Amino acid sequence: AMEPKKTLFKGVIEDFRGRASCYKQDWHNGFSSGFRILAPTLYIFFASALPVIAFGEQLSKDTDGTLTTVETLASTAICGIIHSVLGGQPLLIVGVAEPTIIMYTYLYNFAKNQPNLGERLFLAWAGWVCIWTAVMLFLMAMFNAAAALNRFTRFAGELFGMLITILFMQEAIKGMLSEFSVPEGKDQSLPIYQFQWVYINGLLGIIFSMGLLYTALKSRSARSSLYGAGWLRNVIADYGVPLMVILWTALSYSLPTKIPSGVPRRLFTPLPWEPKSLQHWTVAKELFSVPLAYILLAIVPAMMVAGLYFFDHSVASQMAQQKEFNLKNPSAYHYDILVLSFSVLICGLLGIPPSNGVLPQAPMHTRSLAVLRRQALRKQMVRTAKEGMMNNASSSEVYGKMQEVFIKMDDKGNEDSAHKELKELKDAVITEGKKITEGNGAVTAPEVFDPEKHLEAYLPVRVNEQRVSNLLQSLLVVGCIGVVPVIQKIPTSVLWGYFGYMSIDSLPGNQFGERLQLLFIAPRRRYKVLEGAHASFLESVPFNQILAFTLFQLIYLLIVWGMTWIPVAGILFPLLFFFLVIIREHLLPKFFDTRHLWELDASEYEECEGVHRDPSIPEGESITRGIEDPSEYTAEVMEEFTTHRGELKHRAPSFRDERLIRVPAPTPIHALVFRPVK
Amino acid sequence: AMEPKKTLFKGVIEDFRGRASCYKQDWHNGFSSGFRILAPTLYIFFASALPVIAFGEQLSKDTDGTLTTVETLASTAICGIIHSVLGGQPLLIVGVAEPTIIMYTYLYNFAKNQPNLGERLFLAWAGWVCIWTAVMLFLMAMFNAAAALNRFTRFAGELFGMLITILFMQEAIKGMLSEFSVPEGKDQSLPIYQFQWVYINGLLGIIFSMGLLYTALKSRSARSSLYGAGWLRNVIADYGVPLMVILWTALSYSLPTKIPSGVPRRLFTPLPWEPKSLQHWTVAKELFSVPLAYILLAIVPAMMVAGLYFFDHSVASQMAQQKEFNLKNPSAYHYDILVLSFSVLICGLLGIPPSNGVLPQAPMHTRSLAVLRRQALRKQMVRTAKEGMMNNASSSEVYGKMQEVFIKMDDKGNEDSAHKELKELKDAVITEGKKITEGNGAVTAPEVFDPEKHLEAYLPVRVNEQRVSNLLQSLLVVGCIGVVPVIQKIPTSVLWGYFGYMSIDSLPGNQFGERLQLLFIAPRRRYKVLEGAHASFLESVPFNQILAFTLFQLIYLLIVWGMTWIPVAGILFPLLFFFLVIIREHLLPKFFDTRHLWELDASEYEECEGVHRDPSIPEGESITRGIEDPSEYTAEVMEEFTTHRGELKHRAPSFRDERLIRVPAPTPIHALVFRPVK
Repeated sequence: AMEPKKTLFKGVIEDFRGRASCYKQDWHNGFSSGFRILAPTLYIFFASALPVIAFGEQLSKDTDGTLTTVETLASTAICGIIHSVLGGQPLLIVGVAEPTIIMYTYLYNFAKNQPNLGERLFLAWAGWVCIWTAVMLFLMAMFNAAAALNRFTRFAGELFGMLITILFMQEAIKGMLSEFSVPEGKDQSLPIYQFQWVYINGLLGIIFSMGLLYTALKSRSARSSLYGAGWLRNVIADYGVPLMVILWTALSYSLPTKIPSGVPRRLFTPLPWEPKSLQHWTVAKELFSVPLAYILLAIVPAMMVAGLYFFDHSVASQMAQQKEFNLKNPSAYHYDILVLSFSVLICGLLGIPPSNGVLPQAPMHTRSLAVLRRQALRKQMVRTAKEGMMNNASSSEVYGKMQEVFIKMDDKGNEDSAHKELKELKDAVITEGKKITEGNGAVTAPEVFDPEKHLEAYLPVRVNEQRVSNLLQSLLVVGCIGVVPVIQKIPTSVLWGYFGYMSIDSLPGNQFGERLQLLFIAPRRRYKVLEGAHASFLESVPFNQILAFTLFQLIYLLIVWGMTWIPVAGILFPLLFFFLVIIREHLLPKFFDTRHLWELDASEYEECEGVHRDPSIPEGESITRGIEDPSEYTAEVMEEFTTHRGELKHRAPSFRDERLIRVPAPTPIHALVFRPVK
Repeated sequence: AMEPKKTLFKGVIEDFRGRASCYKQDWHNGFSSGFRILAPTLYIFFASALPVIAFGEQLSKDTDGTLTTVETLASTAICGIIHSVLGGQPLLIVGVAEPTIIMYTYLYNFAKNQPNLGERLFLAWAGWVCIWTAVMLFLMAMFNAAAALNRFTRFAGELFGMLITILFMQEAIKGMLSEFSVPEGKDQSLPIYQFQWVYINGLLGIIFSMGLLYTALKSRSARSSLYGAGWLRNVIADYGVPLMVILWTALSYSLPTKIPSGVPRRLFTPLPWEPKSLQHWTVAKELFSVPLAYILLAIVPAMMVAGLYFFDHSVASQMAQQKEFNLKNPSAYHYDILVLSFSVLICGLLGIPPSNGVLPQAPMHTRSLAVLRRQALRKQMVRTAKEGMMNNASSSEVYGKMQEVFIKMDDKGNEDSAHKELKELKDAVITEGKKITEGNGAVTAPEVFDPEKHLEAYLPVRVNEQRVSNLLQSLLVVGCIGVVPVIQKIPTSVLWGYFGYMSIDSLPGNQFGERLQLLFIAPRRRYKVLEGAHASFLESVPFNQILAFTLFQLIYLLIVWGMTWIPVAGILFPLLFFFLVIIREHLLPKFFDTRHLWELDASEYEECEGVHRDPSIPEGESITRGIEDPSEYTAEVMEEFTTHRGELKHRAPSFRDERLIRVPAPTPIHALVFRPVK
């Protein structure tokens, strides 16, 4: 779907036809799952609503309360409904995202200082920006622009991701510091703004934000924790972050009664049914109060927004449709840009910030639907297998029945590929099962293939592709607007902690981040990276090339970040990203070996995993140049066989000797012979 | 040295002779190390002084300031000097420890409520307790009691360790809560005790104690961190905790100036040269002001203290002399009890709490001296090897020279064992080195044995056994008394965090703790424990036996802990530990299989490490009964191949399939055939 297309609207029409053919099925598949569809719905709703609330608070702080959580929630709900009903790829989740907040902050800061606009006409002018953005997105859809998406390489994507990481952390820190001062525009002489209460507010802010950050990060790893019941670990892993927001909010109500209300500070957002919130909906009426010069000037920010949205929306969609999910329905990149253009227009006319495709929620959505499908497949196949076993069918008959069920449930799946994917299951049921049954005789003994227990391991990945979960989660966001009085109870400091969480959470998987970490590893210790999971470029690209590439990326990142600090011209920062396409295609190949460049900039799905190495056999001369200075690691060697308390960790008689030699740095002689990797 | 001895003073005399024969060497070895001895000295000083300061603050809180950090430091310094000069085993480190604080708190609470004693005669009465304790320890030395030490099995030791863990955490929590209220006996109407300031003090307390706890725990793992230069990682690992105390103390001085001095609260300890501190030294004069009945009553607590000290002192000494340290000089358990008796007497007469052998400092001391020795050995051997290589000596000649140096430096080492221990080095220098030299020709190429780089891996463990580091660190503790004005700057909340650190830090290696954690693992997930490093009893003892044993230990622990809460009779809690010897010998064998009991209660050095298992081959039916409920781990399977952000972690094409099968629970069929372990 992504080759260049010359005919106007060709991509849109193809996408539309493709999705139209499965549109009815998209609804049917959702409803036929019954109540089970609520699990992915709730999961994605919580993952989606919380950032929207946080961004609303950020926007409210940055626009002096002109736009708040009410508007970000409204946009997410409206655009979500539009996308789930009219959109092409229903796995894509939309919402108000950080780039939108940044752009709207620039727009606001510009508008409020213009005598002919001011705060009064800000929303109308932003409406014009949306109108122009919608026009440009329409043109992009018309000219099949999505075909050019692959010119944005990993290089640009990761730089953008890292910028978002930094901006989140900046917001967390700015927010935490703001808890220590009287909010702007408030009456400093109020008793609540006495030094003591403000300082208590600040200290509580540190405790709540650090507390949320720490507990949210911990809850992430609950699923693979050793302790606790399975359902509990799953609930914590899936809903840990919202649960922690609730927990810390509850804790904020357990403070001594002597503390005046207003400490700690809570979300500032007007109720949706207050006049302040209601005025937005009639922004369209004021569109032509904006002077013509400003209407035309709106084209400049609109170009930036259109570029960002095009990029963000398509990448989020791409991530939701990765190859390994084995999706059966076609993609709809071109058509979805058209739908996006439509929803941006509506948001502009309603005076709310528009939504676009969001990460990481889009791939999270697909993943949760894969879980749902897996459970359904498993249930049917287990039932079939059990029936077969009850009737004393042979193991190949049992397998045959299971395969039949799988192919039947796998709509559009072709039979050949199903045979291939089920090969391991076949082996497990027939070959192994037989061997054991012969030697043992008892069919119900745990030795034979027990579908209840063992089937799971052999099921291929399938996704329940439908529109119901997306629509339902959008409706739940509508519900959020109704419960704003409850949302208002969240302390702002909890949200600053949440920004910190989003910042740290966005790092893993970012190879730019991994390469940056590499810079802080002493050269003699780099071989340790090769011992763990690592990307293949570490072995194939000389270290100085990796270094130069990473430093260039870092400097570019700092320039972009610096640009976002410039008051009005900062709005042009996306230009630097578009410019990267040119740099990548024309400048970088002059400084780097093309093969190295390709490896450093490989798309995630083109990338190979490096070979896991036994620590005693380091190869790849570019990294493993030397070993550490022995005088520095003597203490480490000694620590290897003692506990933190200084006791010896001697469990096996051979333990010490073995460890002294294999761990950490001192490699035996034979390993120090460098042979070029074949 | 630990077989039963019938002749009076036999153990003491043997120990004395043994140590006398190396006494001169003990000093010579220390001084001949030159300035390098300062590294272990400083290391052990910081590890030793900080808890003594913390215990001093606890004692000061619990005795209304009668005994403070000045006295705990004084005792540690005096007893340290006595032990390092007159003691038997100079590797043993002494200091005021938690059991002493607990006993003194009981003594104080008892004395202050007796009309005939009161706070005035508390120290004199405590002096009598020390006198009786000294008498009992003297009797123990006389009757060679140390020979019976092995009747205290791991069971009792770990229970005691866990009690200390709980008491540390209790102290940390009590301390943190106390920051939220006006200290006892202070004038509530002072401006500083207004609600706002007390509350700010409490919030700062949470931040400082949690901050210290978190950073101290993190600094522990610095040595094996990937990042940063080697020397920096070593400094942080060795001195991280004192550094963090300094860091958080410095931070506590960066608060806004509007906050009154006294917030946050800092260490309460009088200066050593104030009258309040000076009165202690003449306690001996008041000994006979104590009524006779109380003098005799002092025998009861003295029995408890003597029992605890005997146990603690000997176990700490044992831990400092573990087999793997390859110590050359003899042990001196009996004689050290005699020296302990002498120093307890002196402390009693001076009105300060006595010191005894401390964990984990004692084994930490030995370890740091092993590092020192290793560096010296390496230096000499490298020089010799290089000289040989310069003169184009053959590799076997080079090895011969190195071996000569080793045996010469290894006083009292016998030549046969040296040959054995150096075998791997010999192979490395001769066999491997030769092979490569032949094929390559160039002697200086990195392929040959480079002593500078590779020797480290083959050096046997040797300890620089001497008295200088112990004496010097005691003198540094004397210096601490001089810098009490600096110590007074530490916020109390930092110390509560330090108690939390000590509590958590004392857990690893405690098998009782590990077994307790096992209780929280869902039965179907227990096989995961077998995949990692684990103790052998997990495979050889049925789970219900482990469970019963652990629950018994837990209930006993709760009883002991409950007993420490009883105001005066609580002082008898050590009785419960002495009682354990009887329970272990006579009661437990009736309920548990002797073989299982032996495995659960094996000394640390008798213990074997369990076999590391490939996750796909779980054996040992007692643990691996079933696998998890598939419906619960579907999400876990899906999570395995996505990042936190929901992106696929596909680095190698085969990645997903491999992972789905091997990790986490779903084991392939052939692995589910349970065969009894042969």
